[in-house]
Amino acid sequence: MTGGKRTAVTVLGLGNMGAALAKAFLAAGHPTTVWNRSPEKAAPLVAEGAAHAGSIADAVTAGPLIIACLTTYDATLEALAPAAGELAGRTLITLNSGTPSGAREMAEWATGNGARFLDGAVKNVPEAVAKPDTLLYYSGDKAVFDEYEQTLRELGGDTRYLGDDVDLAALYEMAVGATLLPALLGFFEGAALVAKRGTPASELVPYTVKWLEMIGSVLPKFAAEIDAGDYSDPSSTVGLFYAGSAHDDELAAANIDVSWREPMNDLLRRAVAEGHGEHSISALVELLRKPEPGAARSFN
Amino acid sequence: MTGGKRTAVTVLGLGNMGAALAKAFLAAGHPTTVWNRSPEKAAPLVAEGAAHAGSIADAVTAGPLIIACLTTYDATLEALAPAAGELAGRTLITLNSGTPSGAREMAEWATGNGARFLDGAVKNVPEAVAKPDTLLYYSGDKAVFDEYEQTLRELGGDTRYLGDDVDLAALYEMAVGATLLPALLGFFEGAALVAKRGTPASELVPYTVKWLEMIGSVLPKFAAEIDAGDYSDPSSTVGLFYAGSAHDDELAAANIDVSWREPMNDLLRRAVAEGHGEHSISALVELLRKPEPGAARSFN
Repeated sequence: MTGGKRTAVTVLGLGNMGAALAKAFLAAGHPTTVWNRSPEKAAPLVAEGAAHAGSIADAVTAGPLIIACLTTYDATLEALAPAAGELAGRTLITLNSGTPSGAREMAEWATGNGARFLDGAVKNVPEAVAKPDTLLYYSGDKAVFDEYEQTLRELGGDTRYLGDDVDLAALYEMAVGATLLPALLGFFEGAALVAKRGTPASELVPYTVKWLEMIGSVLPKFAAEIDAGDYSDPSSTVGLFYAGSAHDDELAAANIDVSWREPMNDLLRRAVAEGHGEHSISALVELLRKPEPGAARSFN
Repeated sequence: MTGGKRTAVTVLGLGNMGAALAKAFLAAGHPTTVWNRSPEKAAPLVAEGAAHAGSIADAVTAGPLIIACLTTYDATLEALAPAAGELAGRTLITLNSGTPSGAREMAEWATGNGARFLDGAVKNVPEAVAKPDTLLYYSGDKAVFDEYEQTLRELGGDTRYLGDDVDLAALYEMAVGATLLPALLGFFEGAALVAKRGTPASELVPYTVKWLEMIGSVLPKFAAEIDAGDYSDPSSTVGLFYAGSAHDDELAAANIDVSWREPMNDLLRRAVAEGHGEHSISALVELLRKPEPGAARSFN
């Protein structure tokens, strides 16, 4: 950047998240071009100063930096395919969710077409984009991250680079995101339970929020146990959780479908059977690890 | 309390949590009597000034207020049975985990023996007891809560009374606690995934903590949707989660046992089949609610 001139940015995909990214760039004074498969989504951003690219080729050639926020890598590949010949010398950064293998394929395609490539993830909701505490992380071409770090920081103040391996951001995305659906289902289940007594779900929220904070506060101890492979100094045992699983009967008696919990309770039962009853609950990680193919097995 | 004299308190059960409660009372200057089935657990507390009751009858008769922190209501009933005749005129407060029906039975037994009764829950780890932000909630006899509120606040600054129904604290305990095992399993799964790439679980912790904060931040919207029964203005759809469930294949390819996710993915699949694909993910609450017995059913 020279003389305070902001990098021109193209944003592909104007769902809730893509639109929030484009708004953040506009608010920070970046010349911003937007493209979406259904073009009507561009209108509110054009009203805020964005340029609307009518074709994907126009979108790609509008500037040096293309940020794709489509639903998947496949959708990104499909959208970009007609403009593959225009990618050479430009930089593509993907911010969709997806798998490590998807990120690797995406990188191969982009670099094969002469583009530099970085993959990333927005670890928050669209409403949080551009806030100082909002986390985004990236992996892949370090030179790209370094060159555009200031621009990327417009999307969230907690912007991090994970490493050279282009699939690291997607790997972390899967690992970190693994709590989302199960935690939400737990909340929905709790909401269904209190509703039976006339208590609205909204009254449960502050307690659950505090409970999630409590869970966060115990993760460092569990992580240390997992990293050491030592579960012998528990703050909460597998056996205690297993005893608690009997409480599901009372949820079932309240006509709540607890079948989604059955394999979790089965993990607890198996962990107790394998001698983990007095171990830390973090010992469950050992049951989630399947033997590597070809590894020696014991038969008894 | 007269002239600053602190209420004498008896603590039954000296596991990690019970011991933390006794320490908090001792630190606040309450005359504290402790009892545990295996008496050697009392020694460290006696060293801090607690009186050790050699029998449950001595424990119960040591003062007006008995706080039980045994593992279950059944364990509490069993421990107190020999001293049932000494309960009349005293107050019993239980702080174990358990079910609403367990709390009701406990209350019936205690009041049947002439005691006043309050049930509660410590919504945090033993290390957090006595801190200003630590949440405990109670339900049952309001007069008991009012009389002993200052004493109970020694256990955590965020001390709340939920209502007259004695099983409300246990009900909230189940509802709020429903996120714990599923969220932990998600974290353990993520830890197993990053370990395959040589990344320790401890490096995942700060990201997961932020992710749990993000989950907490979206609960008010989901709760409002559930309370209104209106899932039509989604920030994240059932369909998006369903598409994401395909990512489990990549976890499985990394030799991680994802079978505990199968019923969750099945809920997503059924929700999409029932027309919730474009609805908010909070619509899953509808699938967790089973038809009430005797409710009209449609056959088709």
